[in-house]
Parts: sequence; structure tokens; C-alpha cells
Amino acid sequence: MARINANYDKLTAGYLFPEIARRAAEFTDANPGVQIMRLGIGDTTEPLTAIVSGGLHAAVDRLSNSDTYSGYGEGEGNESLRQALADRYAERGVQLNASEIFISDGAKSDSANIQSLFSNDAVICVQDPAYPVYVDTNVIVGRTADAVDGQYEGLVYLPCTEANGFVPEPPSERVDLIYLCNPNNPTGAVATKAQLQAFVSYARENKAVIIFDAAYSAYITDPDLPRSIYELDGAAECVIELNSFSKDNGFTGLRLGWTIVPKALVTEDAAAGKVNTMWRRRQNTFFNGPANIVQEGALAALSPEGRRQSAEMVAYYKVNAKTIRDCLQSIGLTVFGGVNAPFLWMKTPDGMDSWAFFDKLLTETHVVGTPGSGFGPSGEGYFRLSAFGHEPDIARAVQSIRENLKL
Amino acid sequence: MARINANYDKLTAGYLFPEIARRAAEFTDANPGVQIMRLGIGDTTEPLTAIVSGGLHAAVDRLSNSDTYSGYGEGEGNESLRQALADRYAERGVQLNASEIFISDGAKSDSANIQSLFSNDAVICVQDPAYPVYVDTNVIVGRTADAVDGQYEGLVYLPCTEANGFVPEPPSERVDLIYLCNPNNPTGAVATKAQLQAFVSYARENKAVIIFDAAYSAYITDPDLPRSIYELDGAAECVIELNSFSKDNGFTGLRLGWTIVPKALVTEDAAAGKVNTMWRRRQNTFFNGPANIVQEGALAALSPEGRRQSAEMVAYYKVNAKTIRDCLQSIGLTVFGGVNAPFLWMKTPDGMDSWAFFDKLLTETHVVGTPGSGFGPSGEGYFRLSAFGHEPDIARAVQSIRENLKL
Repeated sequence: MARINANYDKLTAGYLFPEIARRAAEFTDANPGVQIMRLGIGDTTEPLTAIVSGGLHAAVDRLSNSDTYSGYGEGEGNESLRQALADRYAERGVQLNASEIFISDGAKSDSANIQSLFSNDAVICVQDPAYPVYVDTNVIVGRTADAVDGQYEGLVYLPCTEANGFVPEPPSERVDLIYLCNPNNPTGAVATKAQLQAFVSYARENKAVIIFDAAYSAYITDPDLPRSIYELDGAAECVIELNSFSKDNGFTGLRLGWTIVPKALVTEDAAAGKVNTMWRRRQNTFFNGPANIVQEGALAALSPEGRRQSAEMVAYYKVNAKTIRDCLQSIGLTVFGGVNAPFLWMKTPDGMDSWAFFDKLLTETHVVGTPGSGFGPSGEGYFRLSAFGHEPDIARAVQSIRENLKL
Repeated sequence: MARINANYDKLTAGYLFPEIARRAAEFTDANPGVQIMRLGIGDTTEPLTAIVSGGLHAAVDRLSNSDTYSGYGEGEGNESLRQALADRYAERGVQLNASEIFISDGAKSDSANIQSLFSNDAVICVQDPAYPVYVDTNVIVGRTADAVDGQYEGLVYLPCTEANGFVPEPPSERVDLIYLCNPNNPTGAVATKAQLQAFVSYARENKAVIIFDAAYSAYITDPDLPRSIYELDGAAECVIELNSFSKDNGFTGLRLGWTIVPKALVTEDAAAGKVNTMWRRRQNTFFNGPANIVQEGALAALSPEGRRQSAEMVAYYKVNAKTIRDCLQSIGLTVFGGVNAPFLWMKTPDGMDSWAFFDKLLTETHVVGTPGSGFGPSGEGYFRLSAFGHEPDIARAVQSIRENLKL
């Protein structure tokens, strides 16, 4: 008599983006002919760079030829790609062995699956607001009770507020796993070296493990801000860092990311090296490596010319971020982020409810954004806008906000 | 004080294929200049078909163009690909809605992850021998105790023996989840309609769920054998079927499979539709859909011309299977499978231990195969050979066995 995993029933019903799509469709149906402009979803819009495109075509040709075809790859990803990533970290003084880097089908998958390495009774700590995957996956595997007022009992939340510049202090209680997203989705905040060092110190003192999601790190241009947490002393003992090719190379649909599990990492009951071995076993048992052609595209992206073209793509989106930021400030709104991050975090006018502002923005300007409350209770009264979009579309959206939003 | 998932320590140490690689390397080191021939690993060797290659190139071009680029796809895969698969099932009288089909990065991933939909105390039943992923994933999530004599306590094993033609009867006790691989890896056995119907009847009577891995179904050419378990009455109420583009289109490295979770499926505590909804939620939370370009390659593979080219690839490997089978029988060995399946299951001569025969075959003929005991205790005394390989390489290996194996 099979029974289901009843933890699924604890998930609070509507996932954010389907609800946004529903309201946008409702508006379009009621207002035929009106063109909706999207400034909300974190989806890339610019085409693959020429060098990545060439790398993918070459990979397809290789697989189409009897002499060069290959089948299964390594569950942890191609050695050459892992080495190329290690070399890139080395430029910033971070020494990693290729065997500490695992290629995957995206930072989302890894941020979802990494918790499975730890004990069922691990106490989980997340930022509030946060990327929903960190929370939902721990709910599904049973590390929480039900949600009350938008927060799951059994999780520890660190509020990110205007008062702390959206970068919280480490928790005051004992926790086991801490999810940090930096640059942050949704707030666009980026932690300083000192702020990150406080988390590393906490983790080392408490033998906690930090899951550090650096998927937006390519947007950090301020030289004083660390791009990898391993730039900090002691981080290799207590941090698993995730990253992605999505946002700086447009791989959102190609699916490619990586996770670093340092051999130095320790837990209460695991000596150095063990967690690294466990993740290798996990990836070779539950996964078989990402698509080989996509890995070859990524290898092209890491070549000197690939990195130049990737930097251009990031610069393009960063101009969008500035355009949106300048517009919102010019009409008197308060906005955070969008400088070393692709996300902007806007305070709703007059403390308006996030969803009420969503409806107002849609109705008055035909622009769709993302209500902050969708990322957690501390997101209430905020609104996320994203720099991903074609520049002319961003310009039109911004013009409409400037001309039509009634403040 | 983070602690690890201690279930990893229950896994029996060596995974099969690394041990094979180690012994092969040891032989090569000791015998420089000797060329090893592989008849063991289930990895494809023939290049992508022309139509798949064209589909992949077109997809790369689409993503390289600003007007046609797209980012994130659906977590459950492209609608068009799901519909094309539904249409193919309909040809065999199996009616499926596209919303019951979920595209993934391979049958391996799905066969690993599908157990997460069910309760932690589910009693798991597997064939012995079996594909190690079914067992290892349930060990890792904690549904077993330690292994004793190669079998994990808490799992129910169904021995596949010469006496039952390597297709067991349903279990005599109550179980909750039953993993069936058909055509079977490693034995190459294929169940008849009546044999499968017995499992469906068992599952319906006991509200059990069957995980039916049909990854090798393209190798079934006997018209009396079902290719999908949904060809049987009542299967939609109790079976989740998995399949793959790996073995009939050479997608082993491209990573693409699919899973069918029928809306009719019920469990003790879940009404029709619920498990389908849960898997959708799971795929959208832990996964983000497979690589978009690979999905476009798969869509090309499902076109009429794509299916013709795929059938040629299957026929090519089936000729290899016949070559190996004929050779082994001609020298007096007993061999099963390899007719409606890409795997051959050979009885070792004189009841020799599987690993001892591995060493003998390697030393005398320089051919590498897979010891049956690596798939479970009932595999002892057997040896797996695979039809995947270039035809000239197969011919060389077979000649060496015929000339050099001392029987």
C-alpha cells in the first residue's frame, strides 16, 4: 500500500511565477491589444555569444562523426571544464583542485540537491526574502513543520531589511546549514568581505556549513567586493559554493552550473575529504553529468575571447539595470541593488502591499514586475525588477513608468 | 554542528565499473602493446543520426539569434516534445495526455529521483540482479539497513534465474514500490504480456506502484511483446514508466529521457491526479528541464525520417548482439538475452565465479565484459556482454574469443 511523501502537502500553494503569469494573462484578456512589458522575471534575453555558438556547433559535429563520437561522460563533468574553472579561480588567488569542482545542469539543481548530503535533523537557516528553492526543498524532504504566516516552523530566518542594508548578521542561535545568495536574489544586495567573514567565523565556530549561491557573481564589478567566498580565510573548511553559466553567458535554457565541495570541508562527524567524496557518489548515482555539447559550449565561454564576449553581455544587462534605477529614482522612488547585481529591489510607494503595487504597475503602466512578498515575509512592501531584457524593451518600459505611474 | 547523511556509509564500497576499469588498466600496464576490446559497458558508439545532428545545429542557430533566442523552458520539458511522444504511444493504442509526460535529463536521473514522491517507510522491491541505481538511491535516502551478503536488509529481492527465465513472479509478501527493468539490464530478458499482467494485478490488489524502466524498449522487435506496460489493462492506475533517447538515438552523453506519471495513478492515500501533480512540483523545484537544444534534437529524432534513422541504429546494434550470441553458442557456451534486448547474459563455464571469468576472458582473449555478480547475488555465475560497439570491433572481439578462450 504505497503512500506518498506527505511533506508535499506542507508547501504553500501558489508558486510565485505562475500567479504572476495568471494576473498578467487576466489583464491581457480584459485589455486586448495592450502590450505587456516584463521587468520581472530573471530570464535572459540576449543570444549566445559567437564563441559559445561556435563551440556548440563543433560539439554537435564531433558527435555526428563516427571517429569522434562519445557517449557517457563523467558524472562530475568533463575534466577539461573543471580544470578551466579551477584556473579562473586561481586568477583571484583561490586555489582549487579540479576534483573539488562538479559540473551540473545548473545552480538550481545543485541548490536543491545539496541538502541531501546532510542529516535529516539538520537545522536550516535562510535569508528572508530568499530564492524559494532553498526553502521548498527542505520542506519536501521533511526538515520543517507547517508554514505559519508565510514562514515554516523549524527553519531559522534571517530578515534582510533596509536597516541592515539587506545583509543580515549570522544567526544568534545554533544552526547547521546556512543558505546565502550573494549577489542576492531578490534584493540585489552584495555582502562586503567583513560581512561574509562574520558568516565564515560563525560556521567555523559552530561547525555549520554555508551553501553559498554565487550565481550572479559576474555582476560584481566593485574590486573591493569578493566574487567567491573562498577569497576569505577559512571558507574552504565550511562553505560549498554554487555558480552558473546562466546569467553571464545566457545558458538559462542550456542548463549548466557548477558546485565546489572543497576537500577541506568538515562537519561535526565528517573529516576533510568525506563530503567531497559523498557528493561525487551522489552525482554519479542520481545524475550522469550534464549534456556533453553544453559542456563544450561552456569550455568555449571560458576561453579568453569567450570571457571577453561574456563580459560584454554582462555589461549590456548592467546598462539596463542603471536605466531602471535612474528612472525609479528620478520619479522619487527608493531603490536598492542593481549596481553589482542584475536585480533591483524597490520600496513600494507609501508602504503599499507588494501585490497591490503589482496590480497598480500593471494597470497604469503595463509593466510586470515581481512582488517582494513572494520571496518571504520580509519582502512585503518591496518589489523586484530585473535587468534582463532587450535594451529597447527596457527603454519602453521605463518610459511608460515615468509617464504613467501615478504617485 | 552539521552532520552528514550517514546512509552513505551503508553503500557497499566499490561501484562495479570503476573496479572493471581498474583491472583492465592493471592488465594493460602489465602487457604493454596489447589492445583491450570492450564488450561490457552499455555505452553507445555510433554517431548521432543526420536528422538529430541537423536538429541540434538548428537549435544552436536559434539560440544564437536575438530574434529567436529563448531562456528558461518548462520544468517538465517542451510541450511539443511531450506531445510528439504522446502521439508515438497512441500508435500502439496507448492514450496519454502530454501533461502525463515529463522530459528529463535521462532515465537514470528519473529512476533515482522518483522514489522521493513516496513515504520514507515504503517497502522497496527490486529484481536480483538489477541496475544498481534502484537500490543505491533507496539506501541513500534511508529505506534500508546495512547490506548482508550483498543484499540490503529491508529490501525485497526477486531472484531472476534460469529456472524462471530471468522474469520473476510478483512478490509473495506485501511491498509498496516495485522496480522492473524490461527489457532487462543486465539479463536481456523480456517479459511477456501475461508476466507483466501478473505484476499489474499484484500492484492493483496491493495498491503498490511499479517503476517500469523501459529504457531498452526500442530493441523489442517481437510483435507479441509489449513495448510499453500501458499496453496492459489497468497499468495506468499503478505504473510509472521511464524511457530514454540514449540507446536508440545515441543520446547517452546528450542526456534526455522521459517519465510518464499517469493521472489515473493512485496510492493508498493519494487520489487520481495527485502523484502527477507532485512530480510536476518536484521537477519544477529540484530541476529546470533538460537542455533546450537537446530537446530540439529529440524532436527531430521523433519525426518520420528521424524514426527511420533511429531504427537503423537499433538494427545495427542488434546485428552485433546476434554476432556475439552466435559466437558464444558455437563454442558451447550458454547465453540468454540479446534478441529483443541489447544485453546478453552468459552463463560462465563450469559455474565459474563471475570475477574469475572476467580475469580469464581478459587474460586469454583481451576482451572486457561485466561480471554478473556486480548486479546482485543472483548474477553470480553469469556475465553480461553488450551489443554496443562498432561492428569491426565486435568482429575482432568475437574472433579472439573463438580462437583464444580455453574451455
